[in-house]
Amino acid sequence: MTDLATTSGKLPRIVIVGGGFGGVELAKRLKNKEVEIVMLDRHNYHTFQPLLYQVATGGLEADSIAFPLRKIFKKQKNFIFRVTEVTKIVPEQNILETSIGPIKYDYLIIATGSDTNFFGQKEIEHYSMPMKSIPEALNLRSMILQNLEEALIEIDPVKKESLLNFVVVGGGPTGVELSGALAELKKHVLPQDYPELDMNQVTIYLVEGSPKLLGVMSEQSSKKSKEFLEEMGVKVLTDVRVETYDGKVLALSNSQAINTQNVLWSAGVKGALLDGLPKEAIARGGRVLADEFNRVPGFDHIFAIGDVAAVITDEKPNGLPGVAPVAIQQGKQLAKNIIHLIKKEKLEPFKYFDQGSMATVGRNRAVVDIGKIRFQGIFAWFVWMFVHLMSLVGFRNKVVTFVNWVWSYFSYDRGIRLIIRKFDRKSMTEDPCAK
Amino acid sequence: MTDLATTSGKLPRIVIVGGGFGGVELAKRLKNKEVEIVMLDRHNYHTFQPLLYQVATGGLEADSIAFPLRKIFKKQKNFIFRVTEVTKIVPEQNILETSIGPIKYDYLIIATGSDTNFFGQKEIEHYSMPMKSIPEALNLRSMILQNLEEALIEIDPVKKESLLNFVVVGGGPTGVELSGALAELKKHVLPQDYPELDMNQVTIYLVEGSPKLLGVMSEQSSKKSKEFLEEMGVKVLTDVRVETYDGKVLALSNSQAINTQNVLWSAGVKGALLDGLPKEAIARGGRVLADEFNRVPGFDHIFAIGDVAAVITDEKPNGLPGVAPVAIQQGKQLAKNIIHLIKKEKLEPFKYFDQGSMATVGRNRAVVDIGKIRFQGIFAWFVWMFVHLMSLVGFRNKVVTFVNWVWSYFSYDRGIRLIIRKFDRKSMTEDPCAK
Repeated sequence: MTDLATTSGKLPRIVIVGGGFGGVELAKRLKNKEVEIVMLDRHNYHTFQPLLYQVATGGLEADSIAFPLRKIFKKQKNFIFRVTEVTKIVPEQNILETSIGPIKYDYLIIATGSDTNFFGQKEIEHYSMPMKSIPEALNLRSMILQNLEEALIEIDPVKKESLLNFVVVGGGPTGVELSGALAELKKHVLPQDYPELDMNQVTIYLVEGSPKLLGVMSEQSSKKSKEFLEEMGVKVLTDVRVETYDGKVLALSNSQAINTQNVLWSAGVKGALLDGLPKEAIARGGRVLADEFNRVPGFDHIFAIGDVAAVITDEKPNGLPGVAPVAIQQGKQLAKNIIHLIKKEKLEPFKYFDQGSMATVGRNRAVVDIGKIRFQGIFAWFVWMFVHLMSLVGFRNKVVTFVNWVWSYFSYDRGIRLIIRKFDRKSMTEDPCAK
Repeated sequence: MTDLATTSGKLPRIVIVGGGFGGVELAKRLKNKEVEIVMLDRHNYHTFQPLLYQVATGGLEADSIAFPLRKIFKKQKNFIFRVTEVTKIVPEQNILETSIGPIKYDYLIIATGSDTNFFGQKEIEHYSMPMKSIPEALNLRSMILQNLEEALIEIDPVKKESLLNFVVVGGGPTGVELSGALAELKKHVLPQDYPELDMNQVTIYLVEGSPKLLGVMSEQSSKKSKEFLEEMGVKVLTDVRVETYDGKVLALSNSQAINTQNVLWSAGVKGALLDGLPKEAIARGGRVLADEFNRVPGFDHIFAIGDVAAVITDEKPNGLPGVAPVAIQQGKQLAKNIIHLIKKEKLEPFKYFDQGSMATVGRNRAVVDIGKIRFQGIFAWFVWMFVHLMSLVGFRNKVVTFVNWVWSYFSYDRGIRLIIRKFDRKSMTEDPCAK
């Protein structure tokens, strides 16, 4: 079926599974090198995950934060791309099994990123909404808007309450940003769109299992983000865990029960594992173990980078954070090391350079940690916007996003509140029969 | 279930079914009048249908040509909106049956627009792609892009050919614009995205049953549009009808058979009828009969405007063309007449003012008829762009669309070629399980 079942034997073939931050950086760095690059992804586009929450809350179009992978590499001659689902690695044969047939590799790079982790709780997985991909963010947007429409005509007060309670689970950057964006929707958009609804009935909760929000950031940023959220009317519950959720009532570890049909799950991630690796190569959280050269132990030609890789060192016993800069830096370093390998030179170990971290809570409110420097508020918010705008792939995306942000800033509006694909609560996915 | 099952009795309630050009214009014109307006639509947004083909071919985001209906009317106090599917009119009781329960009306306006007409050919309906709504345009985009990805790995030459033959059926404005846009994709975008594909294998056909393209326009525009399309490499077949299509082979009335998996159907429309009207009120093409006051014969309080209305007069025995200006003008006139009715004044008959018509074929190529004035080419193209840009609802949409068009013009690119929802050929709709 596929023309990639064998290698030509002329150039070493580097197969990259995943077109995220790490995979794209690696492939770019191998431009003009004497290699054949094959990138595989289930989608034909790269997703700028840090802004998914804006797609979910009507601030940006999906197309503004995604970029066709073929377009990124349109001038790169040694690059081949295929849309496919990789089902298994067969390391003994240097082969990947995929939905378009077997694909042979000389070097394999696992850059599959992470999936939402429901920690084995099947019921929660079924009834709550994850937000790790563009279709998921769009489903979330549809669900929120449909529940508001439904609340409008619901006369049973208990059912109505459950449609108007929004619970974000997980107080990392995604959870903080999502609950902040919902609070702004509630304040600036919903009163105009739904004059018939009593806004006092709309409640937004943020539930975090640990004692603090933004666990990876400084104490100061953590405290300030909580303060910001509370100013904006979000009920922040820290040190509280979700026990069960049956689609109607969310039971919490502090014995509180929230009557809600809107549970947005951002409480954890796990590696997006591929089948076929031995148990010894798998780390905690479904990630792939990797040494300081990003090599998977036991294999000379298999590497893992980005969110899926667990680079465990004595210094960092939990590995590195699952953020874009780690993936990008690993992709860059691995490009060098693959060339070293081919030339039979000595490999250089990967060193993570921490550029700092930031999160936005809402209009004029963000928190930034850069080394020992911490700042919060409006300047942090501008820094956050600038960094994210500049990181978007493509000039068109930058301009369109900029226009949308400027527009939202001055109009207090979020223009993109369309239910394009109806969400179906029974199947918890979009309604395939919607016209 | 719904609070609209009865009227308050204070103000006359005007129920408008459909948030298209006619319905929106009518509701706007009734602002500040002593009436209660209830608008019902299956979607929560207004669609700018003339630009759907740009969504289907990657030129614009869906969100740029749609606008939330609630937002259009956010400052209109006498306006109520509900997302619902109307299933039936019960004229004896002045009631609509809907998916959210019964809704009572004093005046009913049917502004449901049109659906794709397959003229009863079930097999063609199943296997070909219509383009009358945003989800349909997005499905079309996904199908085109997925078939290109598939062609890349297909080794059977017959199957490969069928993935690379594109057939647009119907030579009205939509068919002309769609085939032109595909020709530009083929020329400027696909060679860079798919360097592995031989562009000579990609063929675009436009099949029209009558002897001329753009039947409603002047002879000159018709001829010129054909010339433009042929210059751009489109194979234009006029006076040729589709006989059968089984998903693989399209059989034509000139005995030609085209091996294709891409059939885009824009060959006809029919009224989007509601159940419950008597046979005498239904005209040819599934439309609702209406007199010069847009009143449905036999009913004093039921009106039809826009594409769904068949205003048959001696002057216009086939009714008026199914275009936005007719709907808008009827909406405007009907607003006046409803006020007349309420005040028991004499009604004013509707007179259509033909502002002219236009169609774009491609870059620098459009045709315009305004009264006796006809022009084609680059100036016509700028006029077309200006008119369409200005007609888009919302300042944000205008700016974002303008940025996209300027970007496409200078880069020869169409940025938005993402397969966001995978299209499933078996069900001929999007894949509900895609992540």
